[in-house]
Amino acid sequence: MFITENFLLQTSAAIRLYHDYAESMPIIDYHCHLPPREVADDRRFANLTQIWLAGDHYKWRALRAAGVDEHFVTGQASDWEKFEKWAETTPKTLRNPLYHWTHLELKRPFGIADRLLNSDTAKSIWDEANAKLQQPEFSARGIMQQMNVKLVCTTDDPADSLEFHRKIATDQSFDIQVLPTFRPDKAMPDNVNFNTYNDYLDRLGAAAGITIKTFDDLLEALKKRHDFFHENGCRLSDHGFSTFDYQPHDRKAAQSFLKLRDGKCDTKSGNVRYHMKNQVTHIQSAVLHHIAKMNAEKGWTMQLHIGAIRNNNSRYFKKLGADSGFDSIDDTNFANNLSRFFDHLDREEKLPKTIIYNLNPASNEMLATMIGNFQDGKTPGKMQFGSGWWFLDQKDGMEKQLNALSNLGLLSQFVGMLTDSRSFLSYTRHEYFRRILCNLLGQEMHDGLLPNDFDLIGGMVQNICYNNAKNYFGFDLH
Amino acid sequence: MFITENFLLQTSAAIRLYHDYAESMPIIDYHCHLPPREVADDRRFANLTQIWLAGDHYKWRALRAAGVDEHFVTGQASDWEKFEKWAETTPKTLRNPLYHWTHLELKRPFGIADRLLNSDTAKSIWDEANAKLQQPEFSARGIMQQMNVKLVCTTDDPADSLEFHRKIATDQSFDIQVLPTFRPDKAMPDNVNFNTYNDYLDRLGAAAGITIKTFDDLLEALKKRHDFFHENGCRLSDHGFSTFDYQPHDRKAAQSFLKLRDGKCDTKSGNVRYHMKNQVTHIQSAVLHHIAKMNAEKGWTMQLHIGAIRNNNSRYFKKLGADSGFDSIDDTNFANNLSRFFDHLDREEKLPKTIIYNLNPASNEMLATMIGNFQDGKTPGKMQFGSGWWFLDQKDGMEKQLNALSNLGLLSQFVGMLTDSRSFLSYTRHEYFRRILCNLLGQEMHDGLLPNDFDLIGGMVQNICYNNAKNYFGFDLH
Amino acid sequence: MFITENFLLQTSAAIRLYHDYAESMPIIDYHCHLPPREVADDRRFANLTQIWLAGDHYKWRALRAAGVDEHFVTGQASDWEKFEKWAETTPKTLRNPLYHWTHLELKRPFGIADRLLNSDTAKSIWDEANAKLQQPEFSARGIMQQMNVKLVCTTDDPADSLEFHRKIATDQSFDIQVLPTFRPDKAMPDNVNFNTYNDYLDRLGAAAGITIKTFDDLLEALKKRHDFFHENGCRLSDHGFSTFDYQPHDRKAAQSFLKLRDGKCDTKSGNVRYHMKNQVTHIQSAVLHHIAKMNAEKGWTMQLHIGAIRNNNSRYFKKLGADSGFDSIDDTNFANNLSRFFDHLDREEKLPKTIIYNLNPASNEMLATMIGNFQDGKTPGKMQFGSGWWFLDQKDGMEKQLNALSNLGLLSQFVGMLTDSRSFLSYTRHEYFRRILCNLLGQEMHDGLLPNDFDLIGGMVQNICYNNAKNYFGFDLH
Repeated sequence: MFITENFLLQTSAAIRLYHDYAESMPIIDYHCHLPPREVADDRRFANLTQIWLAGDHYKWRALRAAGVDEHFVTGQASDWEKFEKWAETTPKTLRNPLYHWTHLELKRPFGIADRLLNSDTAKSIWDEANAKLQQPEFSARGIMQQMNVKLVCTTDDPADSLEFHRKIATDQSFDIQVLPTFRPDKAMPDNVNFNTYNDYLDRLGAAAGITIKTFDDLLEALKKRHDFFHENGCRLSDHGFSTFDYQPHDRKAAQSFLKLRDGKCDTKSGNVRYHMKNQVTHIQSAVLHHIAKMNAEKGWTMQLHIGAIRNNNSRYFKKLGADSGFDSIDDTNFANNLSRFFDHLDREEKLPKTIIYNLNPASNEMLATMIGNFQDGKTPGKMQFGSGWWFLDQKDGMEKQLNALSNLGLLSQFVGMLTDSRSFLSYTRHEYFRRILCNLLGQEMHDGLLPNDFDLIGGMVQNICYNNAKNYFGFDLH
Repeated sequence: MFITENFLLQTSAAIRLYHDYAESMPIIDYHCHLPPREVADDRRFANLTQIWLAGDHYKWRALRAAGVDEHFVTGQASDWEKFEKWAETTPKTLRNPLYHWTHLELKRPFGIADRLLNSDTAKSIWDEANAKLQQPEFSARGIMQQMNVKLVCTTDDPADSLEFHRKIATDQSFDIQVLPTFRPDKAMPDNVNFNTYNDYLDRLGAAAGITIKTFDDLLEALKKRHDFFHENGCRLSDHGFSTFDYQPHDRKAAQSFLKLRDGKCDTKSGNVRYHMKNQVTHIQSAVLHHIAKMNAEKGWTMQLHIGAIRNNNSRYFKKLGADSGFDSIDDTNFANNLSRFFDHLDREEKLPKTIIYNLNPASNEMLATMIGNFQDGKTPGKMQFGSGWWFLDQKDGMEKQLNALSNLGLLSQFVGMLTDSRSFLSYTRHEYFRRILCNLLGQEMHDGLLPNDFDLIGGMVQNICYNNAKNYFGFDLH
Repeated sequence: MFITENFLLQTSAAIRLYHDYAESMPIIDYHCHLPPREVADDRRFANLTQIWLAGDHYKWRALRAAGVDEHFVTGQASDWEKFEKWAETTPKTLRNPLYHWTHLELKRPFGIADRLLNSDTAKSIWDEANAKLQQPEFSARGIMQQMNVKLVCTTDDPADSLEFHRKIATDQSFDIQVLPTFRPDKAMPDNVNFNTYNDYLDRLGAAAGITIKTFDDLLEALKKRHDFFHENGCRLSDHGFSTFDYQPHDRKAAQSFLKLRDGKCDTKSGNVRYHMKNQVTHIQSAVLHHIAKMNAEKGWTMQLHIGAIRNNNSRYFKKLGADSGFDSIDDTNFANNLSRFFDHLDREEKLPKTIIYNLNPASNEMLATMIGNFQDGKTPGKMQFGSGWWFLDQKDGMEKQLNALSNLGLLSQFVGMLTDSRSFLSYTRHEYFRRILCNLLGQEMHDGLLPNDFDLIGGMVQNICYNNAKNYFGFDLH
């Protein structure tokens, strides 16, 4: 037995905190990448490879690093062959979070906890899990219900029709809320190709019922979609940046936009940013600024994801496209730009609730202090330093985030964990986080660094696991 | 009982190191921001809010992050109301250093250790502490004496008359030395407004008896004040930088200075740096270079505080001014500039003893190795990596500084802790530091990473707590 | 007894992993700076100062930081006087890796483990160790044999004749392989003086039998030497950078090269980089790119050492030259440049096996994810994040590297430790590393974070200690 009842809990205080306070709290997964269609359709999964390996670029990276040919990663190998390779590779991931995640997910929801995954156990685990996947409790919805999920927020383009969200919302037979998140990255021409950008604007215009010719048209279209998302329960926006430049200038943005929109910059190849760096920054900054203000007006929360260099490997980018396991951590400085962005909004009294996620842990302390500059004395924990993101979503990364936030801000106000996942099997990430949180606090109770008061510390645990998120986001929870 | 006798001491070796070696060492607080007037006048404090909350921007930030209205932070609320809000907020600071500091300070000097501060205990603690504050041992001087302080260095502008330092020095009834520190930040037009800078130069000139027209005049005035400070026991200078640029060029600095001084750059608004970045850097670098040389000539120590972005929130800056809790950590690179600065001085054989404090812990290792480039084989520990500063003045921050210094330099030569504080209640920071230091060393003795030799390790502890500072700074200790 | 049998091993699992799995594995020291002549000649050392202090800039820095005059560091003091000063300084290095290294090296190979080095024990240790040094087992070769070394790779200039490597290779009486490494830093005019660069090119041309006039000549000469090194068993190249710029452009490089080569940039003083920054970058990038391709074609491994600011102290640089203890950690960002370099090679399908070493631990996570972008699914662990380098070659630095690699990549594929040393006494660094590795893994077995399976974890230990390096580098091992 590897994943025991007290996995990660090193003190009796940690054990008590987890089992008496954390374990039974429901889950609000306020940021994920689940496909809403699969919830609407209540997808069934043919086998473990379909639900577990297809689409999981964490596992793909590990396979490649272990020397497994792409044929077995994203290629034409059969589902069983792919699973077999993953089973063979699993022992090579010792100390990588994949090793813990894998066995946590086999235990919950599959109930397989008596074997470690490796070549020897591959077949029996494959058979046992696949049999489970045929049962109704293992459909998309079934798993969410098993895992005590109350609400999830998917990540959606402003041009999206939200038809599946609406379908789920009106389905009386399913009581987990699935809300959209407004992610207008494509409206900010960061890494997009010039033609792609114009195509996107056409699509966005169509969704909004507006012909987008000028920058003002763009803002109006976004506003219409923002309103539409709000009506459908959306309460967050989300924005991704490799680094964070900020040069807001509406007039320049409007001019730059016209140039791009008129097709005057006929760059056949390459991306827009490379050819028009300043113009792109102007547009990006202005769009972000305006959306932030829309958020503030509607009480939404703005999420910023900063610091991923994407698609580093252009050979594989051509073959597989984005999100295939070729992204990594940037090291650019951005404290001053971020400060100016927040200050700009704050001066206008339009700074929304904000969560910043960083990919480079070297920025942890910078960010954990940056949020303190803009706490407003009205919304508790208005400015949030988000939980360990992507590569940092592991024990060491989460502990560093928790420690930086604790030392430099208020842990007690933290809105806690999210899966950020494309997989219905990722809800044990919340369990993982809760065990780590309880272990950290339990250790300090044991060491006398925190008072030996379970109501006090246990209450904080429950707030971080559920109550803070519940109070912070303003969802209309059923 | 939360703050026990063995608080933070996790091994028997740590307990022995702290109680047998560290605890009784006197305090040399070589860098603080106490108002010398309050020592000269031996100020009495009306209540806990006056001595504890007024002026403490750490607590203000926590209050704002917890959603407490500014009325109760820096506003018009009564002292009791402010204290009540702080008591209510204290449990929300769990894992933040404020939680430890708060209870350390209630225990010493107030002797309140049987209760945790919260809404329920607020009134009883308020009454008990306020009653104590009426006793003579709780005046400004009384507290310093209770805390076994030998000497403190305040932080003073070159234009300051030092009248209160002189008053204290000649007061036979008080034997704690209160020395000035030369902090000429206002003579380096970093973040100052253009008009402010010229006003300041008038004030500095008046103090020095020199009409400042040229850059040479400025240097002469600074030299006169440097001499005057030296006569009054000053042995350190101090300099703050958001990041560290270094472009020394006396001729350019002189020209730039004339331009600023003649009022030719009539920037009505904004700060000088924004409009004249290069010029400002020339002046700043040249002034710093010249003061460093004055320090070297007099055997002073130069302190550099690098990496705070100040006044991020311009709305609150207008309301409350600087030092109100809206500063945070910068992330700019500065290794090469710092190297050139030290090398410039070293080539002239005018590099003074130096202590560098950084705000971004991501620079710890860079700095801990940088000092090693300029150790001169004459003054032990000539170049110092300063103790965890500001946001880093907490267990995690101090441990990281101690570890970086240990691994990359010589911990044994460290001049140790300082409060950097505006409050007479902060001397338990030395206790906090000593406990952390002893815990770190005791743990390694326990684990066999250090020899099990109490004289050896205990001696090092005493050196870091007191003896090194005593030998390093060249104070004329009574 | 300080260095006990279980030094650094805090759990019974750690003890078992070390003694049952790690301890007896032989050593492949794939990167060091040993002088091959001293192996060829089987050098005997007159005394402990000759083998231990002469050339060890780590110890020199510690001596200077402790206030020891240069006379006793690199000056005219006698060997005994120098040793005496080092003995006196050793207790001041508590918590610095020097304290552990010193006592590890006294224990192995000297067998001195009953005393700590200090003033009192200096004479007895001096006498005992010097007596040992007269025995044949303490010659250069004798020590290597005692330490169970199979193979070492020295670091060599392309112009080097490799006469000593050939002499060793043909010496039937000595079965440890001593292979060269191709380090063409001088062919990349980073920090070299203009005249030095031209002198070097003459020397390189002579070695290759080519008159170097053009950039193509340079490449051809390097190719010839690359071939020659390969014939002599070389399987790695090595490259040092303060920061990592990458602007590959063969045509521009060729033009810039002509300019430098024709002596048209007659900069009498200063270094080339300062006067011709862009040109130098073009040449450097192009040379690196071409050598990387040569490596890929021959199955070599490319090592990149990034992040040292060298020769910070120009006063001492004039006196003592490079590598004298005046280098430190840079803080420049380089993620994007590194990504473009790897991608450039990968697009051409010419990316060789690569090991990146960084000096600033703030880059650990960036690098540990960067390598994942270019794992090719063919060579297991093709892209490696190298073991803690230079200042980071200590417990804390190694643990951070091991943790970053574990969390963000595959520890199981790691090629492990190297000494990077100029000294024959440094092989206990492998022991130090192995103890740290076993302690880390043993602790996690003890805590239930790793399965309690000694074959599984012990096998990984043996792979990291020896087997991975054996399989990865493609040496023709005897």
